[in-house]
Amino acid sequence: MKRYFPILVWGSAYTKQALSNDLIAAIIVTIMLIPQSLAYALLAGLPAEVGIYASIVPIMLYSIFGTSNTLAVGPVALVSLLTASAIGQVVEPGTHAYATAALTLAFLSGGFLMLMGLLKLGFIANFLSHPVIAGFISATGLLIASSQLKHILGIEANGHTLPQIISTLYHNLGNANFETALIGLLAVAFLFWVRKGLNPLLNKMGVSSALASFITKAGPVGAVVISIVYVGYFELNSVGVSIVGAVPQSLPPMTLPNFSPQLVKELIMPAILISIIGFVESVSVAQTLAAKKRQRIDPNQELIGLGAANLGASFTGGYPVTGGFSRSVVNFDAGAQTPAAGAFTAVGLAISAVALTPLIYFLPKATLAATIIVAVLSLVDFSILKKTWNYSKTDFTAVAATIVLTLIFGVEVGVASGVVLSILLHLYKTSRPHIAEVGLVPGTEHFRNIERHDVETSASILSLRIDESLYFANARYLEDLIQDRVTKGCALQHVVLMFSAVNEVDYSALESLEETNSRLDDMGIKLHLSEVKGPVMDKIEKSHFLKNLNGNVYLSQYDAWVELNEI
Amino acid sequence: MKRYFPILVWGSAYTKQALSNDLIAAIIVTIMLIPQSLAYALLAGLPAEVGIYASIVPIMLYSIFGTSNTLAVGPVALVSLLTASAIGQVVEPGTHAYATAALTLAFLSGGFLMLMGLLKLGFIANFLSHPVIAGFISATGLLIASSQLKHILGIEANGHTLPQIISTLYHNLGNANFETALIGLLAVAFLFWVRKGLNPLLNKMGVSSALASFITKAGPVGAVVISIVYVGYFELNSVGVSIVGAVPQSLPPMTLPNFSPQLVKELIMPAILISIIGFVESVSVAQTLAAKKRQRIDPNQELIGLGAANLGASFTGGYPVTGGFSRSVVNFDAGAQTPAAGAFTAVGLAISAVALTPLIYFLPKATLAATIIVAVLSLVDFSILKKTWNYSKTDFTAVAATIVLTLIFGVEVGVASGVVLSILLHLYKTSRPHIAEVGLVPGTEHFRNIERHDVETSASILSLRIDESLYFANARYLEDLIQDRVTKGCALQHVVLMFSAVNEVDYSALESLEETNSRLDDMGIKLHLSEVKGPVMDKIEKSHFLKNLNGNVYLSQYDAWVELNEI
Repeated sequence: MKRYFPILVWGSAYTKQALSNDLIAAIIVTIMLIPQSLAYALLAGLPAEVGIYASIVPIMLYSIFGTSNTLAVGPVALVSLLTASAIGQVVEPGTHAYATAALTLAFLSGGFLMLMGLLKLGFIANFLSHPVIAGFISATGLLIASSQLKHILGIEANGHTLPQIISTLYHNLGNANFETALIGLLAVAFLFWVRKGLNPLLNKMGVSSALASFITKAGPVGAVVISIVYVGYFELNSVGVSIVGAVPQSLPPMTLPNFSPQLVKELIMPAILISIIGFVESVSVAQTLAAKKRQRIDPNQELIGLGAANLGASFTGGYPVTGGFSRSVVNFDAGAQTPAAGAFTAVGLAISAVALTPLIYFLPKATLAATIIVAVLSLVDFSILKKTWNYSKTDFTAVAATIVLTLIFGVEVGVASGVVLSILLHLYKTSRPHIAEVGLVPGTEHFRNIERHDVETSASILSLRIDESLYFANARYLEDLIQDRVTKGCALQHVVLMFSAVNEVDYSALESLEETNSRLDDMGIKLHLSEVKGPVMDKIEKSHFLKNLNGNVYLSQYDAWVELNEI
Repeated sequence: MKRYFPILVWGSAYTKQALSNDLIAAIIVTIMLIPQSLAYALLAGLPAEVGIYASIVPIMLYSIFGTSNTLAVGPVALVSLLTASAIGQVVEPGTHAYATAALTLAFLSGGFLMLMGLLKLGFIANFLSHPVIAGFISATGLLIASSQLKHILGIEANGHTLPQIISTLYHNLGNANFETALIGLLAVAFLFWVRKGLNPLLNKMGVSSALASFITKAGPVGAVVISIVYVGYFELNSVGVSIVGAVPQSLPPMTLPNFSPQLVKELIMPAILISIIGFVESVSVAQTLAAKKRQRIDPNQELIGLGAANLGASFTGGYPVTGGFSRSVVNFDAGAQTPAAGAFTAVGLAISAVALTPLIYFLPKATLAATIIVAVLSLVDFSILKKTWNYSKTDFTAVAATIVLTLIFGVEVGVASGVVLSILLHLYKTSRPHIAEVGLVPGTEHFRNIERHDVETSASILSLRIDESLYFANARYLEDLIQDRVTKGCALQHVVLMFSAVNEVDYSALESLEETNSRLDDMGIKLHLSEVKGPVMDKIEKSHFLKNLNGNVYLSQYDAWVELNEI
């Protein structure tokens, strides 16, 4: 019971101190979330209020089922972009059907996450390599930022790839609205200054660092307030500045996703993609924050928590959600101690949805776009290219391909290529393993690569250390390599394969070893194994290999060396 | 020059002895190939003579470009089935367009093989695991045999999966033709007896083993001759026995494949599949035979040889070809010494195509079906299921899935699932590596698993041997495991990671190690590495990891043990 409802654990030990910490964090996060939620809903192509709705019930459900104390669940930039990309290919944007399709997407995503959690498939996220994720996030940050330029300039533009976005932007540049561009560019400049320049300035002015940090975090709210007043006062909406307009003043509505088989079929693959990417983003944030407090999160239970949040979003007028990076960091920094902070944030947002929505009537979309741009550009960091270039060309190739393909062909192609490519490159590397000829380090019992160390060798013994598990992809490679090596040394009587780094021998490799043994036997050469690990030996013993092996199996390479040299 | 034209090497050293050996082998193979080629063409849904055409020019081209001395190239059962499956989905069988599409398929396949050869991509074949291939061949053997039952019974049946074939067979069973079934079943019984019972009988009768073997190989020809005479004498074609009928009496015609973009688009994926499967079958046979004579074949040049053969087939009225198992073994057993044997076989078949075709007018298709059934059933061997069950459940899962999916969903789905599943299972295994806590074997410098050996340990030192390369799929796993272990021992001061089996540390794993290092540092525990291999150390040295590492890197685990125990 406690496994599936972590709230039972932390709820029963809830203290007054935790309550006050959680309340303070909730207030700060609520203030930050209002503009962010509105902005991300627009990014997803949905009415602004959907962003608020998507933050209320999902946060509450996560606080019941989730295992992170500080993760803040709701709309995030990446998932919003993926939502726009997925639904935009199926339904006309701006229609009622579009909003209903978003509910379906959230429902499918929630169901899939829940299923993965119940089947304990959380490990699947591990198959995304870190550099690929880093590259992908940077590339999508660029995509998102460029997709918001249309709101900044007050023109039409669309597309899900960089070339599409840039060409439509360029094409419509002549129609730019001066007032909109003024607001948008000023908002971007202001927000960048808040992020980079305000905090040092406040510190210099002697403001306490906690207050300075709070003021800095409230920057987007400041931009929102200023631009509402400015637009409202001059009624700039009458000269073409696009505003949020009338937002229904209500709690999240009860909604039913559209379950038409055709729509479900079209959205199921995007839903799976959104689930996995959202899960990876969320679990990375949650683990980073948990590690700072020496806490642990349970990835499988996280899947259930995020699944519940998305199912909740689908029945309360929302769209796909996940744990967000920036909001979670704010929650953590503000001192949130338990998931109750999330529940309090939900209450704060519910109050805002009822009470504050008339106030944002004049909020220009350009300001929301500016908050998105500044937020996502902070995630863009191409230094991963340089780091991987220095460390490993394989990793670099995967990252570079992910970035380029994401920008040129869109997020789905980009992330799919990144995953597939990193798996293929890994397989390719292991298919051509490093195999070192080793010799004895004088005066020790250790064996090292003859090309790197000054070691003793014997003309009658060829010792090969195989630096890879043996499986189908490299079975033939080893077979060929041994064949090549043995034809070179005519005094050769023994081949010793040092298995210290062989962690597995699959059936294909076993057949290759049998083949090698029989070929060496024909040539009058004995095949020996050394340092075979327990798990590998257990399996080999189940086969006929040891019966047919014409040499021995030695506990250590040194034993083999001593005995074979004495013969 | 000699690399791409192996004929220059063996041709310049050609002897009279080789000539006579090659001629004898060619005669035997020609006799065997006549019924086989006709039969496989029918299996592919093509006119019988196409099988002969596909054996002439392709064999000659392979003898120029190929590296195997004994491989016999031409129509084979598996590729014929794949051809029928690929073209049958695009063009109406029995039409002229069908035969032209077969040329296109051969052309695309030839081009793809040639390209792979020039790019030296022969290693791709290694990604098919041996058990998956064995299971796939057995399953297709069953599929092919069952698809031929319609000819044996003289009824209509079709489909590319076992359920389809069985249900259409069952549905039409009432229309079975008595005379056809009599010929078909007798031919099957006769051929099985030839294969199993004739050779021992001849040996018992004192016939020399060479002659006995030749008579046994000629069994299908015997069945063909007998059934031609029987059907011709009683004119059974007038009572519904389906015969080969009039075959044009000519050399292979010059033909041009259909290059319409639509057809090319539809056939490109099947062509790639046929190329890879054909290449794997061919190269396996060639390597097995070459090993018996201590010769080597070059997989990349084999791609070029098979590519040339298929391109040849596409311009001379053929269809996709590859190196066949049974014909190559016959060629080898008959004493073929160089690829010239193949060229002579081609001449023999060309003569047959001109001179012998009128003689096969009355040849019943039931007899040809019988030769196919007996040939492919000899390849069906489900013992791989038992072997892999005993050895490794992972291999078993891949084989069982391949067999079941091939039978139920057809060859394309079957082989694709087999490949993907074996890769995924391998990744899954490596994502949860075996990590052993090790201790010192008393009186030695060796360290072994504490659960398997009686070893010395220390309360302040945790030594973990990581039995897997560290990469993105298992980076997090190690991080979590160390975290779990260190929280258990309170006297712990040092964690030593023994890297003897770590063959790679990718960028994701490096980040995980850095994370682990900083967490352990916070807990006052030092992280050390030991037995790091040269190539791994080279890479780690390029990063900042060693600067941040709070412990040391030791050449051997023993060094670490001695030094850390002294502190």
